[in-house]
Amino acid sequence: MASSAPSKTMLWGGRFTGGLDPLMVAYNESIYYDRAFYAQDIAGSIAYARANTKLGILTEDEFQAICKGFEQVKEEWASGQFEIKSGIDEDIHTANERRLGEIIGTGIAGKLHTGRSRNDQVATDIRMWLREELRKIEAFLVDFLKVIAARADKEIDAVMPGYTHLQKAQPIRWSHWMLSYGQQFALDLQRLREVIKRVNRCPLGCGALAGNPFGIDREAVAKELGFEDLIYNSMQGVADRDFALETMQWGSMLMNHMSRWAEDLIIYSSGEFGFVRLADAYSTGSSLMPQKKNPDSLELLRGKAGRAFGQMAGLTMTIKGIPSTYNKDLQESVEPLLDHVKTVGDSIQIATGVISTLDISRDKMRAALTPDMLATDLADYLVRKGVPFRETHHISGRVVALAEKSGTPMDKLSFEQLQGIDARFEPDIVESFDYEKSVEMRSAIGGTSRSAVEQQIAVMKQMLEGQ
Amino acid sequence: MASSAPSKTMLWGGRFTGGLDPLMVAYNESIYYDRAFYAQDIAGSIAYARANTKLGILTEDEFQAICKGFEQVKEEWASGQFEIKSGIDEDIHTANERRLGEIIGTGIAGKLHTGRSRNDQVATDIRMWLREELRKIEAFLVDFLKVIAARADKEIDAVMPGYTHLQKAQPIRWSHWMLSYGQQFALDLQRLREVIKRVNRCPLGCGALAGNPFGIDREAVAKELGFEDLIYNSMQGVADRDFALETMQWGSMLMNHMSRWAEDLIIYSSGEFGFVRLADAYSTGSSLMPQKKNPDSLELLRGKAGRAFGQMAGLTMTIKGIPSTYNKDLQESVEPLLDHVKTVGDSIQIATGVISTLDISRDKMRAALTPDMLATDLADYLVRKGVPFRETHHISGRVVALAEKSGTPMDKLSFEQLQGIDARFEPDIVESFDYEKSVEMRSAIGGTSRSAVEQQIAVMKQMLEGQ
Amino acid sequence: MASSAPSKTMLWGGRFTGGLDPLMVAYNESIYYDRAFYAQDIAGSIAYARANTKLGILTEDEFQAICKGFEQVKEEWASGQFEIKSGIDEDIHTANERRLGEIIGTGIAGKLHTGRSRNDQVATDIRMWLREELRKIEAFLVDFLKVIAARADKEIDAVMPGYTHLQKAQPIRWSHWMLSYGQQFALDLQRLREVIKRVNRCPLGCGALAGNPFGIDREAVAKELGFEDLIYNSMQGVADRDFALETMQWGSMLMNHMSRWAEDLIIYSSGEFGFVRLADAYSTGSSLMPQKKNPDSLELLRGKAGRAFGQMAGLTMTIKGIPSTYNKDLQESVEPLLDHVKTVGDSIQIATGVISTLDISRDKMRAALTPDMLATDLADYLVRKGVPFRETHHISGRVVALAEKSGTPMDKLSFEQLQGIDARFEPDIVESFDYEKSVEMRSAIGGTSRSAVEQQIAVMKQMLEGQ
Amino acid sequence: MASSAPSKTMLWGGRFTGGLDPLMVAYNESIYYDRAFYAQDIAGSIAYARANTKLGILTEDEFQAICKGFEQVKEEWASGQFEIKSGIDEDIHTANERRLGEIIGTGIAGKLHTGRSRNDQVATDIRMWLREELRKIEAFLVDFLKVIAARADKEIDAVMPGYTHLQKAQPIRWSHWMLSYGQQFALDLQRLREVIKRVNRCPLGCGALAGNPFGIDREAVAKELGFEDLIYNSMQGVADRDFALETMQWGSMLMNHMSRWAEDLIIYSSGEFGFVRLADAYSTGSSLMPQKKNPDSLELLRGKAGRAFGQMAGLTMTIKGIPSTYNKDLQESVEPLLDHVKTVGDSIQIATGVISTLDISRDKMRAALTPDMLATDLADYLVRKGVPFRETHHISGRVVALAEKSGTPMDKLSFEQLQGIDARFEPDIVESFDYEKSVEMRSAIGGTSRSAVEQQIAVMKQMLEGQ
Repeated sequence: MASSAPSKTMLWGGRFTGGLDPLMVAYNESIYYDRAFYAQDIAGSIAYARANTKLGILTEDEFQAICKGFEQVKEEWASGQFEIKSGIDEDIHTANERRLGEIIGTGIAGKLHTGRSRNDQVATDIRMWLREELRKIEAFLVDFLKVIAARADKEIDAVMPGYTHLQKAQPIRWSHWMLSYGQQFALDLQRLREVIKRVNRCPLGCGALAGNPFGIDREAVAKELGFEDLIYNSMQGVADRDFALETMQWGSMLMNHMSRWAEDLIIYSSGEFGFVRLADAYSTGSSLMPQKKNPDSLELLRGKAGRAFGQMAGLTMTIKGIPSTYNKDLQESVEPLLDHVKTVGDSIQIATGVISTLDISRDKMRAALTPDMLATDLADYLVRKGVPFRETHHISGRVVALAEKSGTPMDKLSFEQLQGIDARFEPDIVESFDYEKSVEMRSAIGGTSRSAVEQQIAVMKQMLEGQ
Repeated sequence: MASSAPSKTMLWGGRFTGGLDPLMVAYNESIYYDRAFYAQDIAGSIAYARANTKLGILTEDEFQAICKGFEQVKEEWASGQFEIKSGIDEDIHTANERRLGEIIGTGIAGKLHTGRSRNDQVATDIRMWLREELRKIEAFLVDFLKVIAARADKEIDAVMPGYTHLQKAQPIRWSHWMLSYGQQFALDLQRLREVIKRVNRCPLGCGALAGNPFGIDREAVAKELGFEDLIYNSMQGVADRDFALETMQWGSMLMNHMSRWAEDLIIYSSGEFGFVRLADAYSTGSSLMPQKKNPDSLELLRGKAGRAFGQMAGLTMTIKGIPSTYNKDLQESVEPLLDHVKTVGDSIQIATGVISTLDISRDKMRAALTPDMLATDLADYLVRKGVPFRETHHISGRVVALAEKSGTPMDKLSFEQLQGIDARFEPDIVESFDYEKSVEMRSAIGGTSRSAVEQQIAVMKQMLEGQ
Repeated sequence: MASSAPSKTMLWGGRFTGGLDPLMVAYNESIYYDRAFYAQDIAGSIAYARANTKLGILTEDEFQAICKGFEQVKEEWASGQFEIKSGIDEDIHTANERRLGEIIGTGIAGKLHTGRSRNDQVATDIRMWLREELRKIEAFLVDFLKVIAARADKEIDAVMPGYTHLQKAQPIRWSHWMLSYGQQFALDLQRLREVIKRVNRCPLGCGALAGNPFGIDREAVAKELGFEDLIYNSMQGVADRDFALETMQWGSMLMNHMSRWAEDLIIYSSGEFGFVRLADAYSTGSSLMPQKKNPDSLELLRGKAGRAFGQMAGLTMTIKGIPSTYNKDLQESVEPLLDHVKTVGDSIQIATGVISTLDISRDKMRAALTPDMLATDLADYLVRKGVPFRETHHISGRVVALAEKSGTPMDKLSFEQLQGIDARFEPDIVESFDYEKSVEMRSAIGGTSRSAVEQQIAVMKQMLEGQ
Repeated sequence: MASSAPSKTMLWGGRFTGGLDPLMVAYNESIYYDRAFYAQDIAGSIAYARANTKLGILTEDEFQAICKGFEQVKEEWASGQFEIKSGIDEDIHTANERRLGEIIGTGIAGKLHTGRSRNDQVATDIRMWLREELRKIEAFLVDFLKVIAARADKEIDAVMPGYTHLQKAQPIRWSHWMLSYGQQFALDLQRLREVIKRVNRCPLGCGALAGNPFGIDREAVAKELGFEDLIYNSMQGVADRDFALETMQWGSMLMNHMSRWAEDLIIYSSGEFGFVRLADAYSTGSSLMPQKKNPDSLELLRGKAGRAFGQMAGLTMTIKGIPSTYNKDLQESVEPLLDHVKTVGDSIQIATGVISTLDISRDKMRAALTPDMLATDLADYLVRKGVPFRETHHISGRVVALAEKSGTPMDKLSFEQLQGIDARFEPDIVESFDYEKSVEMRSAIGGTSRSAVEQQIAVMKQMLEGQ
């Protein structure tokens, strides 16, 4: 393996004498992805420098120079002008400090890192970046839920088959289906707010592992950086990637909800079901088959549930069993986290697009309702006549069997046929063969009646309000 | 494949005509594990019957018969007298109702299930069982944290090497190490309380998927059963195993913390480190090597992090992409959940036993401290003399190199040697070669100084108080 | 925590002085599941004793006593008479040796373990047990594939829609669908045979980690026990649970195939599709809805894909990052493996039952074919007339659009309408509107034509032949 | 959400009328990563065109034009000149065909896709790319194993402690340790060769799902493209990502081995153990602590075991439960696969660098050997005197206890002290206190003696030879 002389500006450059394997340099460096945190890294450094200025470690002039220098560095990143020195700028911290030194001189820039370690620095950067991304995701999720609520309100009259085991079960409202996921996503929102609270705690001042020896005012630093709380043990501050793992557990669960939501819609948009029709914007065609309209958006949403899960699973394993405090293994948290957050954020937006634009077919929904879905209503009818439920269930089962055997839909069986099965059927039984009535009967909280569905919408809207 | 005539008491017995494959019966039945919920199933049925009594579906006498009958069923379970009818009692719900019918007659027992489905019933049972188990775990966790706090307080004077990358880094207090995990476990406690809140919501009254058609008072039922809130959408109520998945995500994270804690202690109890010595109760010997004392308890804790994760991973995948509402796939949540909860609860207790009983060796801890661990203090010394940190870091690096090259421990280098490296070293440099001073210097919040560690103990104790 | 005096018969009893925590005893002991290996443990001990007899460590009489004693122990296990001494018989190895000692005296029984460790013993036991279970699974899998082949042969004339993206794509044969999974399962069979080869290697004689000091003839031992090869490094022999992990990776992949197969059949058995109807033996009804017939068998198969995966994922994580050789963490491989092997073996048998007994509806299959599924054939028609494919694809797309817009099925459009779209359509275009012809056209290897499907059956049968 | 008019060159452009959501375009497109397959995509297209030429679908001139055109396209990719049209070139297949059309005219280029679908095309591309990458990895792995073999041969005399449970167990050779992993990696090599065999099967000609309607000669195409075999069912050909999943299962297992190997070396390179010292090229320093030399390479190797596992876990879940044939979910296999293959390939090379360049300290290894590690040898000594092993184990345990209690190393106990414990100790017992002798005693196959280790090297070299 070839090796090259180590760079003089490597942070630990004073001691190493051997060469570096270029592949190892690449294997080790994180700059090509942790550059995502450039702004947070700079903000953190400025807050840190301000606190060190109060301690007399930096003069006010030095502090001003640092601020001004970082302004330029930040501008270079923002405009795409920042030149990464490959093999030297191994991470965003090194890159920013290297560049600052070039701008304001290493005499001042060399004071920046006093009492700090990349261990607390990187944890601070990621936490700041993450809390900001999670707040964006929070907003996406609120939007998604608002669309669900609005649509559920507007299309409350559409009745369709409800399924268990993918078999027709009982009639439901289309809005009821939407809200069943709405509730799950609303709990995702509740959980997200709890996660953000734990992400948004400040590790800066934890040093390499043992804390800060110059008496830095960690509370002031945290406040300047918008943190809600501190990390109270310095070893934990550098060791702990729970903020990343908890985010990914959260994202994995949300995407799992998404996978079921997408599965339902994929099935409902098949030719055989036909309840919904996706907007062209969220479908694609086939390169070979001209007639195809494929629900690619939904399939990607479903598939990305695996991706999001895999990132969480991978990080759990990376962290498993490693010793205390910082180990380089933890660097493996960054790339998955970056992709995870993008995947989840994009997915919520795509789902919002899908649900905003799809068309429903009330005709197909209605046509799919079959009389045997009212078998429970038939049993309930007899319950109301005083027959024990278990008996009504068997009677109703015999009605279903007769309908099947005779090839007559259940609601077309003659009154005599029904009475032949059980004498307690009376002429008012015909009123039970009504899908609208069936959904309206289920008026207890959480049920399918109009009022129960409207209550659900109200509950969900309240959940959007936040803590 | 052989088949047998279907049992008359199968809940859906009215309709099926074919035989059953005995392996399929076993593959399908859950009674051998969901019997764990017998008491919750009975309590849920009684509350449900009471609500149905108010609706006139049951008479007061029937209700009393049900209560009395269930008292006997419960007693049979508790005393191990309940006889499971294999192939008939496919699940706990079927078993309990079958037995109730034998005791009070199927005329009354057959009314119990009115408007209810096993879909809402099973979700209710598991949620009740789970919230109770999680409260036990909460108590175990509080105990564990109290031991950590007490021990951290009592052994605050023990100083040992702190490691990053498993390389000696800076001196820390043994208590600081304990508290670094204490903080992580205290956040597990915080999270657990949030999880319990979401587990403890009542799905009873959701029916098969569409809600209850007899206007049941779901709030009264929930209140009687000790739930804090309802599930507000009936499809969600039967579809959603988030309470199980969230519990396992929680448990997986806690066990991941445990795995790192165990890893540290395994390393610290190796002959080479020797900082701790496990009590015999938590060690075992070798069948071949008489001298061995193995930290089996810690290895099991570390290993079970995999088990707990695997259960969560498996359930995530089971749920992924299945359609709306109840699908039999969801039955696969039960066994993993039962084992998960046991694994986590036992593990916390074992960890408490380990940390309660291990001995530390202050001598070995002290002996492991090496002067080069004070290299940062040396750099900090120069910082205090006004030298930029980057420069001090390089100077200190040269001191380390000289010590290594000359075979002289850093603190035994002569003042002349130090001055030869940098003229700004002054005679007071010798004061920096003091491990106690080093830990006391780190007095910012979260650091290693006595006062900072005491503050951490106070913070942690406060976290035990709960919401 | 209470503790009890350590048992004298604990294998390491000579040294320990402290008490044991009863929970720790339970947490540590494996006898309640590793008893599954009792026969293998005994066979391994006898082979080992025979080899030690050849070395003079045991006399021939002692060896005979051991054989006879073990015969009784084995009989006790087989008949359910073996009494496990809780807290003493912590694992199957200890239990068997303890009982042997009671039967033949500890003077002889105490020689059995000479040069052996539980480390090589347990690895031997599990490998023997596993290879036997995997051979059973191999046979189940062959049976399953034979059913697929037979059914594919018999029902080769049934034509149904083929789907991509769950949208109707092109006509296929039902047999072609079955064989698409058949090929995947046949590769599982190929992989299984490779796995067995690696499972079936003998670690006995590896000792605790460093090998055997009495010159045991490992090849003779391995041969007696039916192993195909040895483990060639003693540390690997005790450290490595790859045989378990590889088995679970294999099982996870097979179950993933199963999950897709089940998903298809669940969809095909929905009311909307109706292509297949499961036998009653593999369906269940609803406790609430009398009309339901649910494909529980298939849902369990799909759900258990998560379970099998979770076991593999958990073990991967358990093993990750643990140090060399035996660590107690490895005990966590046993329970998941036992359940995994049972889950996979049962699942294949259930799948065989399902596919053996389901009915297909040729009518529903045929009725689901729609003319737009021949759009590609239309394009192919023009290709045969010399039109570039991309152009034909667009032309065919316009035909689909016209059919959709005019509400006329594509095959009912008039010749004039077709010519209006493209003048190159000629009267023979009507021949393209034929589903049978469409499947027969695809006669290249792997296609849907009768001959191509028959070839697939032949290929698959050949794959059953084995190595 | 904004939308834009759909591009005319979208492959399905003939039919869609709505707009596209730009985020959806990005969410859907794969060109930014599947461009990795540009060369395979072109080679596949040329082979496919050649076969179509033989069928008369293309003229020889058209075929030559296609070849020439693709030569240019390939050159543009290779030189970085290819301009991706964002929003139009959604994947590599579309991009290549679009560009070909610009070069040679769409009249000819439009014939290329005849009878083909992107479904079979993409599976072909990935399989070709993957088999080539896996062959590179095979070579890296062979190199790694050769280094292990060479080093094991050269340093066979170095004796060190062997550990179980991270506790000193018995003396071993350093070479024995290396070979314990060597054997595991050699089995990875065996498995890899099996995986490649299954990856290297040709799906081209499977079409969208139903096969090829023009009678393409699939065997000729496969042969031209270097495939060893065909996929024999067209639905499987487009549905199956087992080649990716099997690769990742393989990689996950290899990386799991790597994680344990790295863990050992991290521990062995700690100050407390000190057995090995990494070359500077594979270590890094600390930004805060000048004395640190951290084994970053090994920590990254260990951490990336999580990454590799997570990719496999994610893909398993993505595939779980999706219906038959191609679904867009499968696109989610590509990015993880690309990264997985790079991660594994790089990791093997880094591991090779580490093991090639680290220094061992025979002194530290020797110094770490302690007399109690010979306790088994003491027991074995008595076994040779005819004492049953269980008794010798207890006697030896008492010797260990006496040594510990009296503070005298076991080998410094007087002969009287030993005889006080058991009268069967004779003066030749002193010969047992010899670490060299201890390792030489274990001469059975797979043991620590020189000859046994040499045999292992020979076995491993043989395993490199391949099929």
